[in-house]
Amino acid sequence: MNPTSAYKSLETRYRRMNLVRDAIAVLDWDGAAMMPDGGAQTRAEQLATLKLIVHEQAVDPAFADLFAAAGDGKGLDGWQEANLREMRRDWVHATALPADLVEARSRAVSACEMRWRQARKDNDFAGLLPLMQKVLDLTREVAAIKAEKLGRTTYDALLDEYEPGGASAEIDAIFADLASFLPDFTQAVLDRQARAPVPVPLDGPFPAAAQKKLAEELMRAVGFDFDHGRLDTSHHPFCGGVPDDVRLTTRWDEKDFAKGLMGVLHETGHAMYERGLPQEWRHQPVGFARGMSAHESQSLLVEMQAARSPEFLSFLAPKAAAAFGRSGVAWSADNFRRIYHRVKRGLIRVDADEVTYPAHVILRYRLERALIEGRMQLADLPGAWNEGMRELIGVVPPDDRDGCLQDIHWPGGSWGYFPTYTLGAMTAAQLFDAAKRAIPSIPSALSRGDFAPLMGWLRENVHSLGSSVSTRELLVKATGRALDAGVFKAHLKARYLDS
Amino acid sequence: MNPTSAYKSLETRYRRMNLVRDAIAVLDWDGAAMMPDGGAQTRAEQLATLKLIVHEQAVDPAFADLFAAAGDGKGLDGWQEANLREMRRDWVHATALPADLVEARSRAVSACEMRWRQARKDNDFAGLLPLMQKVLDLTREVAAIKAEKLGRTTYDALLDEYEPGGASAEIDAIFADLASFLPDFTQAVLDRQARAPVPVPLDGPFPAAAQKKLAEELMRAVGFDFDHGRLDTSHHPFCGGVPDDVRLTTRWDEKDFAKGLMGVLHETGHAMYERGLPQEWRHQPVGFARGMSAHESQSLLVEMQAARSPEFLSFLAPKAAAAFGRSGVAWSADNFRRIYHRVKRGLIRVDADEVTYPAHVILRYRLERALIEGRMQLADLPGAWNEGMRELIGVVPPDDRDGCLQDIHWPGGSWGYFPTYTLGAMTAAQLFDAAKRAIPSIPSALSRGDFAPLMGWLRENVHSLGSSVSTRELLVKATGRALDAGVFKAHLKARYLDS
Repeated sequence: MNPTSAYKSLETRYRRMNLVRDAIAVLDWDGAAMMPDGGAQTRAEQLATLKLIVHEQAVDPAFADLFAAAGDGKGLDGWQEANLREMRRDWVHATALPADLVEARSRAVSACEMRWRQARKDNDFAGLLPLMQKVLDLTREVAAIKAEKLGRTTYDALLDEYEPGGASAEIDAIFADLASFLPDFTQAVLDRQARAPVPVPLDGPFPAAAQKKLAEELMRAVGFDFDHGRLDTSHHPFCGGVPDDVRLTTRWDEKDFAKGLMGVLHETGHAMYERGLPQEWRHQPVGFARGMSAHESQSLLVEMQAARSPEFLSFLAPKAAAAFGRSGVAWSADNFRRIYHRVKRGLIRVDADEVTYPAHVILRYRLERALIEGRMQLADLPGAWNEGMRELIGVVPPDDRDGCLQDIHWPGGSWGYFPTYTLGAMTAAQLFDAAKRAIPSIPSALSRGDFAPLMGWLRENVHSLGSSVSTRELLVKATGRALDAGVFKAHLKARYLDS
Repeated sequence: MNPTSAYKSLETRYRRMNLVRDAIAVLDWDGAAMMPDGGAQTRAEQLATLKLIVHEQAVDPAFADLFAAAGDGKGLDGWQEANLREMRRDWVHATALPADLVEARSRAVSACEMRWRQARKDNDFAGLLPLMQKVLDLTREVAAIKAEKLGRTTYDALLDEYEPGGASAEIDAIFADLASFLPDFTQAVLDRQARAPVPVPLDGPFPAAAQKKLAEELMRAVGFDFDHGRLDTSHHPFCGGVPDDVRLTTRWDEKDFAKGLMGVLHETGHAMYERGLPQEWRHQPVGFARGMSAHESQSLLVEMQAARSPEFLSFLAPKAAAAFGRSGVAWSADNFRRIYHRVKRGLIRVDADEVTYPAHVILRYRLERALIEGRMQLADLPGAWNEGMRELIGVVPPDDRDGCLQDIHWPGGSWGYFPTYTLGAMTAAQLFDAAKRAIPSIPSALSRGDFAPLMGWLRENVHSLGSSVSTRELLVKATGRALDAGVFKAHLKARYLDS
């Protein structure tokens, strides 16, 4: 078989596999947003069957020959070559592990995740420990095997699933920079905040229907196309579905609309990325989003950089007042800025503000790396957690419920995921900064609720690239440099100290 | 391989195939009830991929050996034996046809169905003729091949896809009986109706939300479990999803709630059948509904026999009045009976009442058989249609739009489907009759909106049997005799002449 026809055959196979993955994505959305509880068992069986089919397709022995025949992509154009590279990456991850290890880990994760729900409620780390140890042991096995196949460290081999090409050596440097910056900076922000007026609370109730109407209007402003997507409700908000039919979900809290609204805008950022991926490469690996930090950069760019900008908040405040039929000082742009720029040392990552959030992530990154690399025992996690909280954020959890038991990631088997949140936040700051340099009218457009200039730039410089370049190359092409903590720090200073 | 392990291996394969079919069913529902228009193209690709996977599984050459090894089911229990028989049936249909014929027909059907939408609007039979001829020719090829494999006539081979074991020789006798009965009977009903008060119209508007609330309340009364199903809206109402998660759809016409409400109850009858199928045989062929006439019998039993019974209508009238905040003579039980028992000679099958509906079906059955058996030319269809309408219903369509172009079935490739509607209606009458003999309190329970006694009987005598027996055996077991037009005629006489 010649290289080109081998490549074409690979394209056909990946297209088919990814169409089944699409079906899985729609069924996952349905399970969260539509399915009655009684459908859970049969849905789990449907999904398990489809996942098994994808797995069997992915490990088909024919791939080895096809990749060998395709060689180094001679005769292919640039996108095809990148596609071949991404296919190989997918294939290495799919075939790296023996089937019994995959199954054992999948079972361990299911058991641990289920136990975690109760253990968190009961503040029972000791009770969870044996199950979590099992997950960790099997994850370390996975990491060792993948490290060997990928020629990377064990932690980086796990990271690579979420952040292709990500390297802890680079993350170390960036996080060290942030970790030395954040404590003093946070104190300075809190001191300044203490001298400013306190935010006036927005008093509810805020009917869900009015919230939905406002949220949909803002989604349209960002560029969300309701002919290619929906907004529904689910217990945990997410961006699901497929690029041509994006399914967003949220929750409506009738006592507080402010947080949920930003949540919708966050998910809309994810959605815009998916929608903007290169149409001609649908269902091919090169047509997918670049990785988790790139994805998170798009949600945080919309939520944190654009929608919480003073310009957009000055547009939002009167809009929200009208949506709920309110008026008064609480609904002023100044008060909205005080609400949306409030900083607080807190225990819970998902409730953290933009300033303290990175510290939560740095803590988790340090701990999961030590656990994966065998430099720390799982039994020592609660103590190390609390010590890290004191050092990085300046508060100590009174118990493990609000400490090391708060996140589902580790019990759920997601090791190597945490750093992507903060890499995403920093990438968002760097992209927004570059976009504003390229198109200086972006802030004034945002003050009119107009995202079009910003989105046009992101379409061209991020979304449409898919996975044709590495995360690093993408950033260099778009902003002129690799990830640079300086831009993020400058953003924080500008918003929280100098404004 | 011994027979038992061959059988077990077949079970595993059918389970997997049917779980993919389940996923298809949920995606089909989503496409009709949830999906934004822009998602259609990618959804079509997802579905084509899943269907191809099912097809490849179904025609796996390994089946021939497994069926050979399983033999006649020695060592299996009764249900397993029936399951093996149903698997073989599925397999024969799946493998009977050469792939190029399946594909050619699928393409011809797509083209014809699309053209039909316009041809109907344009009253353009001549324009549709070449495409429909192609569908007919290929369907006749299919029929000839399947007739050979199944050892049946060509028409019966097509019928068998919808009505396993159905035989036109039996249908001929039953339809001949009805065809000789209906014209005079219809005239007698119309004469009587002309002497009675005309129905007082129910004046709208009827807000969709109030209609939905009422419909859901009645669905619950029938026994629909919202923990295992939903009610949503779609352009064409249907019962979709899977037995443990049934997805019903309807449309809300704010000018007229009466028709839509019965539509919901009709679909609820389908849903109750699916939900009541034997839980321990989920995803196995023997656990499926018996066939289209059995399925239609369950929807028509709920809609026509139970919900349009005088007893239930006396419960419904005040309920509906309260739901819409109305009162007066239009909302009396008597007026509801006049509305729901109205008979009219009409041109359109889907708008037909219970009395004239069978005549529409008999016409189509005669014509499609003549076309499949080559006793009639497609070009002669409009004339034969109009002649049949005059003979059977006493009205002649002014054009083909409201004549032979009205149904999607033939352009859409469903040949041999039509008789199941009327077989279903007759089966419904016979089952309802038997249920009332077994549990005489059923009518009085319905007058209180209580379907439990009826549903209990149907669960035991119909739903829980799945496909463990033939349609004929099912009816004999449940009612003491094979399908008997006399019961249906007696039902019509009692409701339309003697009440």
